[in-house]
Amino acid sequence: MEEQFSPQADKPTEISQLGEFGLIRHLTKDLKTVQKSTLKGVGDDAAVIENFGETTVISTDLLVEGIHFDLMYTPLKHLGYKAVVVNLSDIFAMNAVPRQITVSIAISSKYTLQAVEELYEGIRLACNMYHVDLVGGDTTSSPKGMTISVTAIGQAKKENLVYRSGAKPGDILCVTGDLGAAYLGLQVLEREKQIYLQHPGIQPELDKSQYLIERQLKPEAQKEAIEYFDRYQIKPTSMIDVSDGLASDLKHICSASGVGAFIEEGKVPIHPDAEMTAINFRLDPITCALHGGEDYELLFTIDEKDIEKIRYMPDVFIIGEITEANDGLKLHTTGGNIHELTGQGWQHF
Amino acid sequence: MEEQFSPQADKPTEISQLGEFGLIRHLTKDLKTVQKSTLKGVGDDAAVIENFGETTVISTDLLVEGIHFDLMYTPLKHLGYKAVVVNLSDIFAMNAVPRQITVSIAISSKYTLQAVEELYEGIRLACNMYHVDLVGGDTTSSPKGMTISVTAIGQAKKENLVYRSGAKPGDILCVTGDLGAAYLGLQVLEREKQIYLQHPGIQPELDKSQYLIERQLKPEAQKEAIEYFDRYQIKPTSMIDVSDGLASDLKHICSASGVGAFIEEGKVPIHPDAEMTAINFRLDPITCALHGGEDYELLFTIDEKDIEKIRYMPDVFIIGEITEANDGLKLHTTGGNIHELTGQGWQHF
Repeated sequence: MEEQFSPQADKPTEISQLGEFGLIRHLTKDLKTVQKSTLKGVGDDAAVIENFGETTVISTDLLVEGIHFDLMYTPLKHLGYKAVVVNLSDIFAMNAVPRQITVSIAISSKYTLQAVEELYEGIRLACNMYHVDLVGGDTTSSPKGMTISVTAIGQAKKENLVYRSGAKPGDILCVTGDLGAAYLGLQVLEREKQIYLQHPGIQPELDKSQYLIERQLKPEAQKEAIEYFDRYQIKPTSMIDVSDGLASDLKHICSASGVGAFIEEGKVPIHPDAEMTAINFRLDPITCALHGGEDYELLFTIDEKDIEKIRYMPDVFIIGEITEANDGLKLHTTGGNIHELTGQGWQHF
Repeated sequence: MEEQFSPQADKPTEISQLGEFGLIRHLTKDLKTVQKSTLKGVGDDAAVIENFGETTVISTDLLVEGIHFDLMYTPLKHLGYKAVVVNLSDIFAMNAVPRQITVSIAISSKYTLQAVEELYEGIRLACNMYHVDLVGGDTTSSPKGMTISVTAIGQAKKENLVYRSGAKPGDILCVTGDLGAAYLGLQVLEREKQIYLQHPGIQPELDKSQYLIERQLKPEAQKEAIEYFDRYQIKPTSMIDVSDGLASDLKHICSASGVGAFIEEGKVPIHPDAEMTAINFRLDPITCALHGGEDYELLFTIDEKDIEKIRYMPDVFIIGEITEANDGLKLHTTGGNIHELTGQGWQHF
């Protein structure tokens, strides 16, 4: 009954020209769903999901402009992609498969339709990459800035779920990829932003930091790891995704499981670019890897007897072991020392 | 491992004293779950829900300070309550039962811990009232103002779900309660705000508008209607909750179902306080009822043959009928005229 809105590609379109319903319709008009479990996507009071006897796993995140992202160096497409991926990462961390997402955005009038479309392009790209359906959400105005709320919905057989709480002394501590790069990517972007603000003529030097910047702006969730566990019937005893930083996230596992742990400094995977950039910033590479955060690798523990099963798992690194609770959290340094590891930050003497 | 934070009741506490983890821990420390389906609530990467063979129904809303609420006349406890209720309303509108919610909030540093606690008191109150579990969310800072994102998760047998799309010509159009009061409550609050801003000494006159203000600030979702449908095995052919306004929401049903409809002006339930206040504001009461919004009543259609079944349903009003699509949306006035009804607004000549 209502007219379809056709924006002109060559002209910025004010959001207010479309109105809320118009904007939602415009952004969701080509939306197709691929999951069999999606009975009803966008377009009713709620989305409907068929469960096929599995449990539902739900995670949600709120991203606020000026707190979680800086649009000065974050392309909107990357932002949309990352907003989805960080939520899918939480679903994978339960050893579950993400199948649907909802996305709500609040945007001020400074954004054009084209800007919102760019954001949605990133959201759609992530949906395609991870085979999840966008099934709902909310689009509204905000007096200032942009806020994005993503909820990810996944499924798993109840007996396959992996919590943070199942680690036990003797379990092997593993991580699916290198750490610290996302944090160093952010440092590079912040440095170039400051240089640009002081000398607007200078072109930012980002070529040499491509890997680090990609880890910061376009992280990936560890779908392959979960598929590998499924294929080879491996069930980690505990799992979490590395969003706050290795030390902090390991602490979550240890708290929930009532155990201690140690990390072997020499075994923590650090990308050569991260190592070099850390040194350029006069930072200790292992500190960046332990406390950097936003790597979205999976940190998991497996029973000692399963160690053979992960030997051929691509991109897995054994970095330590679970101990008794009263052993605390320790770092075994390459120099042969043992340091206390805190979630808040760690001093390398 | 971490110290419990004990705020002092008599002193405002800065959020920054707790940090993000501290705040989340503080707000969720007494959280108990009551739903059998809640396998895991707050405290892991994601919440886990057992489905018992039912489908999952999901709805989400984003509420932004300065757009959706004005803290000058909205107590934080009411805001928390309403934020939950409006989402539960969407779940009921699918003929499903809400069982869990996630709540994410972004708050600027101007809010104290006590303010956030007040907000959560309202959230918890709504959870208790509707027997839903708070199973997850996110708490973060914002550069300015407050944003609240609520996702509601419900369950229903697939065959019991009611969509917007099932209405057919001849169906009876019903609503579960009076309309327009929430809109008029907002007008009263806005008027008193303006008076207060101009004459800060004057006490607001709100006593006579208690019903209207409560409809605006503390709406309820129509749990009883869904329970009645279940008890008497009634399945509406279509349903939606009245959030945008009767005309606009009926238009959603008609679009989705490919039908037309008419409303009998004389049958639209309007509370006497709403009628009187509308006239005081020189507004037409029926216009307020048709376009006011935020009433959170259920608008549904039933097959003509089910009319006997709802005769003894408490608080149900038959207000019109579904017609063929090319009959459009019509209002049959008490004066015997027929007017075109638009979603956007309607002129009473």
